[in-house]
Amino acid sequence: MAIPENTQEIAEILALATEENFPVVPRGAGTATTGAPLAHEGGLVLSLLRLNRILEINTEDLVAVVEPGVFNGAFKKEVEARGLFYPPDPASYEFSTLGGNIATCAGGPKGLKYGVTKDYVLGLEVVLAGGEVIFCGRRTMKGVVGYDLVHLFTGSEGTLGIITKIILKLLPRPKASATLAAYFRSVEEAAEGFLELINEGLLPAAAELLDEVTLAAVSGLLEQELPPEARALVLFEFDGGPGQVKEDLSLAEGALSKLALKVESAREGAAKERLWQARRQISPALKKLYPAKVADDVVLPRRLVPRFLREAKELAEARKITVACFGHLGDGNIHVNLLFDPKETAREEVESLRREILEKVLSASGTISGEHGIGLTKKGYLPQELAPPLLELQKALKKVFDPQGILNPGKIFP
Amino acid sequence: MAIPENTQEIAEILALATEENFPVVPRGAGTATTGAPLAHEGGLVLSLLRLNRILEINTEDLVAVVEPGVFNGAFKKEVEARGLFYPPDPASYEFSTLGGNIATCAGGPKGLKYGVTKDYVLGLEVVLAGGEVIFCGRRTMKGVVGYDLVHLFTGSEGTLGIITKIILKLLPRPKASATLAAYFRSVEEAAEGFLELINEGLLPAAAELLDEVTLAAVSGLLEQELPPEARALVLFEFDGGPGQVKEDLSLAEGALSKLALKVESAREGAAKERLWQARRQISPALKKLYPAKVADDVVLPRRLVPRFLREAKELAEARKITVACFGHLGDGNIHVNLLFDPKETAREEVESLRREILEKVLSASGTISGEHGIGLTKKGYLPQELAPPLLELQKALKKVFDPQGILNPGKIFP
Repeated sequence: MAIPENTQEIAEILALATEENFPVVPRGAGTATTGAPLAHEGGLVLSLLRLNRILEINTEDLVAVVEPGVFNGAFKKEVEARGLFYPPDPASYEFSTLGGNIATCAGGPKGLKYGVTKDYVLGLEVVLAGGEVIFCGRRTMKGVVGYDLVHLFTGSEGTLGIITKIILKLLPRPKASATLAAYFRSVEEAAEGFLELINEGLLPAAAELLDEVTLAAVSGLLEQELPPEARALVLFEFDGGPGQVKEDLSLAEGALSKLALKVESAREGAAKERLWQARRQISPALKKLYPAKVADDVVLPRRLVPRFLREAKELAEARKITVACFGHLGDGNIHVNLLFDPKETAREEVESLRREILEKVLSASGTISGEHGIGLTKKGYLPQELAPPLLELQKALKKVFDPQGILNPGKIFP
Repeated sequence: MAIPENTQEIAEILALATEENFPVVPRGAGTATTGAPLAHEGGLVLSLLRLNRILEINTEDLVAVVEPGVFNGAFKKEVEARGLFYPPDPASYEFSTLGGNIATCAGGPKGLKYGVTKDYVLGLEVVLAGGEVIFCGRRTMKGVVGYDLVHLFTGSEGTLGIITKIILKLLPRPKASATLAAYFRSVEEAAEGFLELINEGLLPAAAELLDEVTLAAVSGLLEQELPPEARALVLFEFDGGPGQVKEDLSLAEGALSKLALKVESAREGAAKERLWQARRQISPALKKLYPAKVADDVVLPRRLVPRFLREAKELAEARKITVACFGHLGDGNIHVNLLFDPKETAREEVESLRREILEKVLSASGTISGEHGIGLTKKGYLPQELAPPLLELQKALKKVFDPQGILNPGKIFP
């Protein structure tokens, strides 16, 4: 593993890699769920963790300049101390890097109102495969000079170049926020509850779903008695000025009153933090309870989410596999977790179920990854979503950036 | 000119153009300010105006599917009738097409809070140079499967492919809005006034600047007496729930009270519409008063806007040319208009001034185009903003999409 200190060293490494024709696998904190930062075919792992400086946070321009190894959580804290706000909030935010977030175009609960990582990247310094350094994008809020390479690099999982500097857009920090916890009889009713809010003209900052299995796994962290019939929980977040938050809460409570078993709001720190802590602890909690887990990260058009949740459960039941669905209900981005004991359930059985579920997603105009990326674990499914001419075009673009195929080879493309 | 009716006909035209090697210049309503839709080197102009159907507006998915020849204004009206909102609002919105808006990544006043066209494009059907039809992107709110080609096509001015179908993201329509008109002694104080709002944590939906020359040109449309010392006007727009708008207005009035000569709010339809009508009529009003106009569309980091406005005026005065600066103060996107009489001022003098102004922009980490694009009129300045390796990379990408160079040749690249 190489742990370079600056752009220049990375440029030298890539020039050498091109000359000697060895693969380079860039790596942030290694929290990707898809194997993207693994050197599974050998080659040099290039850690970005020493490029870890926040170079500038400008409160008037609402812009920050950072190196890729800065942790999202540490950056958020610095930004918030200045009255500003960097919305992207993957569950890993305390221990994932901004460079890694950009490489995967990480999302998070607040994506619903605030968009995902790509919506905050204004400019990038990138070392290309041959060792040349380019700067693309800009420091300004807008710009249309030349093709948009910033978005091409964002989400490209280190296969087009290595990001060495990042210009991010910031927002003023919302002055108030509140969380609404709503319990439902079923995930279908929970999803319908969210649609009631949309019909009311409300777009919460977040709307996070926990299904029955998930709820059971984290119920200890919620520190409250659940309604006995509760089989699903949705955490809604509202933010803005105090007047806006009050308005939104009251509208939301009205809109949810028909479907929800219980609606409870938390405006102050500790109660809110307890709810969100439970949300962030879902993955570790499930891992504790079930010996093995295969996780997908699908997105559906909003109105088809209730049907999909029902179908996924039926498909899983038919194969006697437990499924836990949770995640970003608001933008239709559902984390589907197949939970099993490898001693009792054959891996092929799990893969068959996975294939059935992904087919349901694609036939509903959905996508097989909303925010985790493709890496190694999903590349086999890529041709089911991307038609041959599109796949060929993407491979041709990869070739322009990386003619020798030394940048994170074997990822994304099957 | 060809005026095809559907994707299939466009695919056939492009297959023929590839075979016979003739240029194809796609064209929406032809409102571009940069000459992008002109067949200046000959070839076939391909009008998209007959692909003009709104195929779907889905109120639960918050998604619309449209053809490229739909007019932005007509679309907005349909969307708003369903309680939804499509924010991108170039001044041309009543007479420019959604396809053209995407080809140039059009902005508009509401870009400040809501972003620009690219922030609303989820998926695109595109006919490639050889006549193949691809669909890239998705119908869902999120997705990270493969490289982001949607953003690569957006703003590419018809040089990479021809857009034939568009999936757009919509928002719930804000329930309330209000306009605040603030008059200042100078453009510098106006720009400082905006920074006061940012420091207060306020991000208005829009903050539109009119400098002295601009104000004089449209003052008849404002139908009100201006403070005698007024040399600049900023129109601020706030939207959200009624409580939020009330809160924001009161905070803004407080923050502006030190710098502004007069602050006036308009919440109801006619008074608001009068102010915004004046804003949209700036370009025609200036054209009426001055025989010739050269317009740029620069963006600066927010904190450098006041200094730039002063410098631009000084540079223009030194050459005895009138300059009118107006536009999207909030995101630093200023329209710099050089006004002159060709009988009195040599064109070279105007071009020299233009070069000086663009150099100021670039030396302040700005960009030479925020939302109009490059087309023909700015391509000579491209190498001043984009370094040689980046320019070469962009040309290599163009070659992947269009090896024969038949798609809108001679645009963007010098």
